[in-house]
Order: sequence, then structure tokens, then C-alpha cells
Amino acid sequence: MTQTAAIIGGGVIGGGWAARFLLNGWNVRVFDPDPEAPRKVGEVLANARAALPALSDVPMPPEGQLSFVGTLTEAVQGADYIQESVSERLDLKHRVFAQIQQVAPDTPIGSSTSGFKPSELQQNAANPATIFVAHPFNPVYLLPLAEVVPSVQSDPALIEAAKETLRSIGMFPLHIRKEIDAHIADRFLEAVWREALWLVKDGVATTEEIDEAIRMGFGLRWGQMGLFETYRVAGGEAGMKHFMAQFGPCLSWPWTKLMDVPEFNDELVDLIAGQSDAQSGHHTIRELERIRDSNLIGFLRVLKDRDWGAGKVLKDHDARRRAAMPDPTPETAAPMPMAHMRVLPGWIDYNGHMTESRYLFAASEASDAFLRLIGADLAYVAGGHSYYTAESHILHLGEGKLGDALTGTVQVLGADEKRLHIFIRILKDDAPVATIEQMLLHVDMAAGKTCPAAPEVLARLLPIAEAHKALPRPEGAGRHVGQRKA
Amino acid sequence: MTQTAAIIGGGVIGGGWAARFLLNGWNVRVFDPDPEAPRKVGEVLANARAALPALSDVPMPPEGQLSFVGTLTEAVQGADYIQESVSERLDLKHRVFAQIQQVAPDTPIGSSTSGFKPSELQQNAANPATIFVAHPFNPVYLLPLAEVVPSVQSDPALIEAAKETLRSIGMFPLHIRKEIDAHIADRFLEAVWREALWLVKDGVATTEEIDEAIRMGFGLRWGQMGLFETYRVAGGEAGMKHFMAQFGPCLSWPWTKLMDVPEFNDELVDLIAGQSDAQSGHHTIRELERIRDSNLIGFLRVLKDRDWGAGKVLKDHDARRRAAMPDPTPETAAPMPMAHMRVLPGWIDYNGHMTESRYLFAASEASDAFLRLIGADLAYVAGGHSYYTAESHILHLGEGKLGDALTGTVQVLGADEKRLHIFIRILKDDAPVATIEQMLLHVDMAAGKTCPAAPEVLARLLPIAEAHKALPRPEGAGRHVGQRKA
Repeated sequence: MTQTAAIIGGGVIGGGWAARFLLNGWNVRVFDPDPEAPRKVGEVLANARAALPALSDVPMPPEGQLSFVGTLTEAVQGADYIQESVSERLDLKHRVFAQIQQVAPDTPIGSSTSGFKPSELQQNAANPATIFVAHPFNPVYLLPLAEVVPSVQSDPALIEAAKETLRSIGMFPLHIRKEIDAHIADRFLEAVWREALWLVKDGVATTEEIDEAIRMGFGLRWGQMGLFETYRVAGGEAGMKHFMAQFGPCLSWPWTKLMDVPEFNDELVDLIAGQSDAQSGHHTIRELERIRDSNLIGFLRVLKDRDWGAGKVLKDHDARRRAAMPDPTPETAAPMPMAHMRVLPGWIDYNGHMTESRYLFAASEASDAFLRLIGADLAYVAGGHSYYTAESHILHLGEGKLGDALTGTVQVLGADEKRLHIFIRILKDDAPVATIEQMLLHVDMAAGKTCPAAPEVLARLLPIAEAHKALPRPEGAGRHVGQRKA
Repeated sequence: MTQTAAIIGGGVIGGGWAARFLLNGWNVRVFDPDPEAPRKVGEVLANARAALPALSDVPMPPEGQLSFVGTLTEAVQGADYIQESVSERLDLKHRVFAQIQQVAPDTPIGSSTSGFKPSELQQNAANPATIFVAHPFNPVYLLPLAEVVPSVQSDPALIEAAKETLRSIGMFPLHIRKEIDAHIADRFLEAVWREALWLVKDGVATTEEIDEAIRMGFGLRWGQMGLFETYRVAGGEAGMKHFMAQFGPCLSWPWTKLMDVPEFNDELVDLIAGQSDAQSGHHTIRELERIRDSNLIGFLRVLKDRDWGAGKVLKDHDARRRAAMPDPTPETAAPMPMAHMRVLPGWIDYNGHMTESRYLFAASEASDAFLRLIGADLAYVAGGHSYYTAESHILHLGEGKLGDALTGTVQVLGADEKRLHIFIRILKDDAPVATIEQMLLHVDMAAGKTCPAAPEVLARLLPIAEAHKALPRPEGAGRHVGQRKA
């Protein structure tokens, strides 16, 4: 059954939460008295729709229903999860929690607060046990981190369930064991921010120079390993202790101005805002958002290919959703529709077209499904036998575009004990955008050579091959590259 | 004429400098009294050889000559550039500079120091004007940043020339206008390091949790935009001033413990080293280096595709080298190595083999690089023209396995105004694991039909096609699927 999330506060952060829940199939009710909230959430959602599916290798679930409601009570009544993202004022948050708990005293309430501790949030609450910190990072629809901070008054089972909810929308809940002001990540951001303000104020560097000092160097490192793992590698074989011994003494050197806080006045604000305009003012905020999202998608896909860091979170999320998908039901009378796919944003190249290798990927989805159908499935492979592709010919006849529904059909051109010759059509609106002719060989994987397929596989395959002899031979079969059309 | 760099100090940093110079065609002389230096530099160089070429879309220049010399004088005599990477002891650095300037008083000397100011380095030097900070970031062969810090005593023309030298080896020299302890980036690293030590010491988080707090969230942001541009976007339409007004007050809140410095004792070292072992100890340092480099290559290629940040540096470096490349001649004709790749975990299917569609993906990496080489690059596509693949034939001849280094070569079988017929070999240890024959058509994208390529593209393509006529026709070319071997 479709679950419902209540989003209290519809700014950039609330909108990001709404988008994550919606795109993962939840219904979402947003409450924000600001009349601009629907527009603001709509803009974040448009960015998210263009970005989040690009990270997925399985079709996204149908989007949930989004509604904007007029009262807080309407939003939270019957909701399965509540996320609060109102302004950073403790009195306001307390009032919101009190109102929520009048109608939903037992529902988990995650707070997006960057600074307050859960024990502060829980003060005077009717049911403190359900209120905790779930602190996300902008853009919420792309970055997996959510710092989950309970207090001693929290209900451990509720916290575990909330973490599972966050995982189900593709996030990485980082359980923080001791509450502390600003949790973990924002303490680092605050330290860097303070130091950066000094550097600008003292005329050592401009905002642009500071940004270059970050993104040309350690920023790249930190997207894939954090602080300690990076230093562990830098320390080399001598190990972490050696690294620390080398850099420990710097702690007493004047390497930061953090012992002092810069005066935050109009002059400093103007200096920084002016430098930021000079640095980035030639891009609109919308452009910068798209650039940022495109870069983050690229980084996240890199990590996914490598099964590392945030990419592991994406792979786990795919696996979870793939397991919940129904198998296609094949028909054996004609070219057999074996796979139904949708052109995902991650399949689109810099030309805006479906990337070449994705046509073969789509063909593999169809041929893998066909192999499962005849019994050459994962269990069969685990037994040491498999079909390997020896040769493929791809003919491009049309174009897949973002969001297109594609169907992969399989026609058997020929089969014997060892060989399987198939012709795959990738159809869009019943017309092929590509055809793929393939020769597969049945192999004994340990011996590394061909051998006859198991009798039970042949018993399924050969009747299909026999039936398909009645089908007309596809026009594209038997072509070599560059052959003139008949 | 081949230039020579003298590398003084052969540790991880010195080795990284040596690798960058060598792989960009410089001769390199290393001096380090440590008998282990050749092994250490050799290990860094092996990593660099596996990594740096993967960022290049033009063939790398022939590698320079590496020599280890017995005296500092031998290293620096006649060198065009000197880089000092000895231990962080000012008295030692002063002795090294004095010895260098006895024989090379006018040669630029960049220092890799993370902490000392150039005016400190220059104290008592025979010629202070040539000594400056050129502070790189590990791994030096991949990360483009070099903080270049002169003092008032520096020679501005020499500094500009040194920045040009750094650009010529693919780096991004960030000129820092006012000298300051620890320059810029390390002040941020130091601030985060101090805060992180507190969090571990106080039991708020383990090293692993801290690393996740970084790489699942803001670390991903900082690889592509820095601190200020990220916040500018977060501030939205209200602008940078609004953002600052919102977060300015936090400066007076207890969001860091930086007003105090943790006591650096054995207990703290043991705590952190132990947690780091638990977090990363299942990987050797060599493995972590390869994982890190593979991730960084991925990030850098993402940014290069998007012409953004560190990716811009790579594109500029390619353009510079492409301009210097000789035209192909029949005498020099050979299949052109266009892409260097590694089989990533995400390329592996449930059989443990490289997924079928990834062979075509690898071929696309090679053909895309070839298209960029002849000028049919992203800017060309943005102008409304592109090469589309009409047809492909893939022959599987071997297997890619996890971690294999693959090279994609391109041989032009034929080309005219509209057609480009290529043969791609995906090589592992110089033997093809797959060959891909492709016919590409040059199209007017708006009109949706073929048209002649631009004269400047044909001017690059046709001489290569002419030169490749001298090559033997590949055995696999012209095959159709299932054809018997000759």
C-alpha cells in the first residue's frame, strides 16, 4: 500500500524531501503557510525529476501524489512519516511539534535542523520519544546523507524504523551516537566557513580563489574517501600512527585563525557578496543548480560503477527495488517480448540521445530474460555452465529518447546443442529503434570451452527454435557492417 | 627540446612530481639520500602510469628519462625547474636551497611545503627571488591544484614562468596573493582535522562515521563547486547576502570546539589508529590507492565531459598537447590508442565477467576520443552536427575481468565527406578481447539527415584515413554474425 509522508515547511530543504518521497512512490502532503510554497516545491521537484532517475538502473516506481494542504493537522493525520523543515527557531519548532502530537502522537517526526540537539527539540513535547534529528544535505534529492540523531529519550525501535524509511527512499542514515550542537558534518562546514571568512576579510584570497583551492584539490578527494581514509592512504605503509606523528605537532602552530571569530558586519557581507557576484554572477541560480546536479549525477554514477561510498547506497537501492519488480510474462508464439524498459536519464548522452551502448544493454535485458525462460538462469550458471555471447551485430534504425517505453523481443534464428542464434528487436511504439543479431555459445565455464547444454535447457529451447522456423527471416539478419541495403 | 626537472626528495610527494613531469615528456633527475627512494618513487610512478593517461584524450607524449643521482649538485645542474619536497624542517630546507644555489642560482625552485611562508624559505638565500612555494596535493599526478605563493622578494616574471611550467604538466597553479602560514587549503584541512580529533576523542563519532559524514554529503559537493558557490546556490534567488544573514549568527554559537586544541597524546593516537584499522584495514594501502585513483579518474572525467572545474584544466591541457601533435603519415600509421580504461566492479555481471554492453561502452570511449581528436567534439555537437553510429559488429575474442587494464585503439577503414568506417580493438595485454567494427554517418541534427562534415573536421580526418590505408585490413572486418572463420 502506498505510504504517505507529511512535509512541514516547503522551502528548498522541505521541497527536496518531498521530491525524494514522491519519486520513490510515496504520497506527499506539504504544509507551509507561505503562499509561494507550491511554486518553490515545484521548482525543486522539477530539478529532482530531471536528476534522481538518472541514478537508477531499474525503472522508477510510479510517482506518488503530491498535495498542498491548508493546515498542519491535515498534513500529518494518518501520515506514516513526518519531516519538519521549518526555520531554525526553537520556539517555532516546539509549537509545530505540539500541534503535530495533538493528532499524531506516535508518528516518527524527523527534524531537518542543522544546529539543535534532539533533547532540545523534545523539550515539553507530549511524546518526546518520537522526535529526532534527520538532517539532510542540499540537494536533498541527490545527496544520500541524513544524520540521524536520537537522544536518551528516543524510542530505539522507532529510530530503527525511521532509518529503514530513509533507506527505502535511497538515503544513507548515519546514526550519530551522542548528541552534540550542529551534529557532525555542519561542525566541519562551520569551521571551514569561519576560516574562509577570515581569509576574505584579511584579503588573502577571494571567494573564487578559495573555491578553486577546494575543488581542484581536497574537494575531489572527499567525495570518495573522507578525512581519515584519505590520510591513511597518504601515510602509506608506515600507517596511520606515522601519519599522525608527522602532523600532530601542527596543532600547536598558527595554521588557523579559529581561536578568534571574525566580526560579522555589513562590510564583510558586502565584500563576500560582491566577490561571489564576480565569481558566479554570469550564471543564474537555475543554471548553477543544473550544473551542480549534472556534476553530482556524474560523481554518483562513477561511484556506482565502482561499488564504492555513495555509489554503494545507489546499488543497494536498485537491488531492493529490482527484487520487488514482477517478472514479465512471455508468450512463445511469435518474436517473444522478453523485456520492458524505459529510457532513463542515465541512458542519455551529451547529444541528448540514448547512448550507443545502452541499445546493447537493452538487448542484454531481453536475452537474459530469454535465458532465464529456458532455464539457463543464475542457478544454472552457479552450476558451472552458461551461454556466452560470441558475436553481435547492431543496426540502428531509430532513436530512443528520454522516457520512451521500449520493448525487447527475441526471435530464435537457429539453435543446436551448443549454439544459440537470436535476433533481438528493440521496439518503440511497435517499430524497431535497433536490432541486435547475436550468436551465443554454450560453455563449460571451468574448462573454458563449448559443450552441449543440459537436456532440460534444450527441452525448452529446441521447441521454441522449431516454432520460430515458421517466422519470416528478419531483413537485418546476416548483414555485415557497411553492406548496401538490398 | 626535452626539458629537465630536478626533484629533491623522493617520497610520496616528490614521487608524484617526478611522475607528472615524466609522463608529460620531461626528463627527471631525482636526488634523495634514502636508499629506499628508487623503490618509493617507482611505486608512485607505477600508480601514475596506470592513472594519468586515463584522463587524456590525446596520445601521451613519449615518457621522459628518469634517473636517480648521487648528489644534489648532479640533480640541479642544468635543470630547467627544481622542485623541493624534503621534510618539513626549515633548517633542512635552508641547507638544500643554499647548496642548490651554489650551482643553479637562477633556476626556479618550487617548494612543496605545506606550512612555511615563502619569506621564511628565502631567509639567508643567495638569491631569494627564485624560491617560492608550489604546494601540491596528493596524489600529485592526478589532482591539478598547486598553490603558488611568492613573497615580496620574488621575481614576478620567474613566478609567471613557473606557473606556465605547472600548466604544461597539467596542473592548476593557484596564485596566492598574500603569504600566510599553511597557505589556503591546508588551513581548511587543519580546521577540519582539529574538529575531527575532538569528535573522536569525545566519543561522538568514529573515524568511519566522520568519513561517511563527509563523503555522503558535502564532500561530493566540494569536488565540483567550492564553499561559496555551493552556498550561493543554496541561498537561491534571495542571493548570497540572504544566505549570509541566515547563517551569520551561527558564528557566535558553540558549533565547533576550535577555540581549544585537543591534547595530542598516545591515547588519542591509539584511539584513532585503531578505529582507522577497523574502518579500512581490510584493504591494503596499495588497494586503497588504486580505489582512490579510480574514483578520482571517474570524477575528473565527469568534470571534463562537462567542461567544469578541474575538468576544464584537463581540456585545456589536451588542447595544448593536441596543437603540438604532428600529423599522421603512412610511415607512422598504426591503430591509434584512444582510450585507457580499467574494468570496474560495475562492469561485471553475475557470471563474474565483463558485461556484454560494456565492450560497446569501451568502444564508445575510444570512438568518442577519436571524434574529439578530429574536432567533432562537444562544441561541434552544440553547433548542430554530429557523427551517429549506424551499425556495429562486435566480435568477442576474450574476456575482461575485474581490474584489467584495457586500451581501445581506432583504425580507420574508410572515410569520405559523410561516412566514417572504423575498426576498434579492445586490447588487454596487447591482445584483443573484442573488436568492434562501426559505420558512423555525419548528420545535420536539426534536419535529421546526413550531410558533409565541416572542412576543418575533414582536414583532420582524411589524412588519418589516407595514412591508415597502408595498414592491413583487420581479419574481423566485414563479418556477419555466424559467418564461418576463413
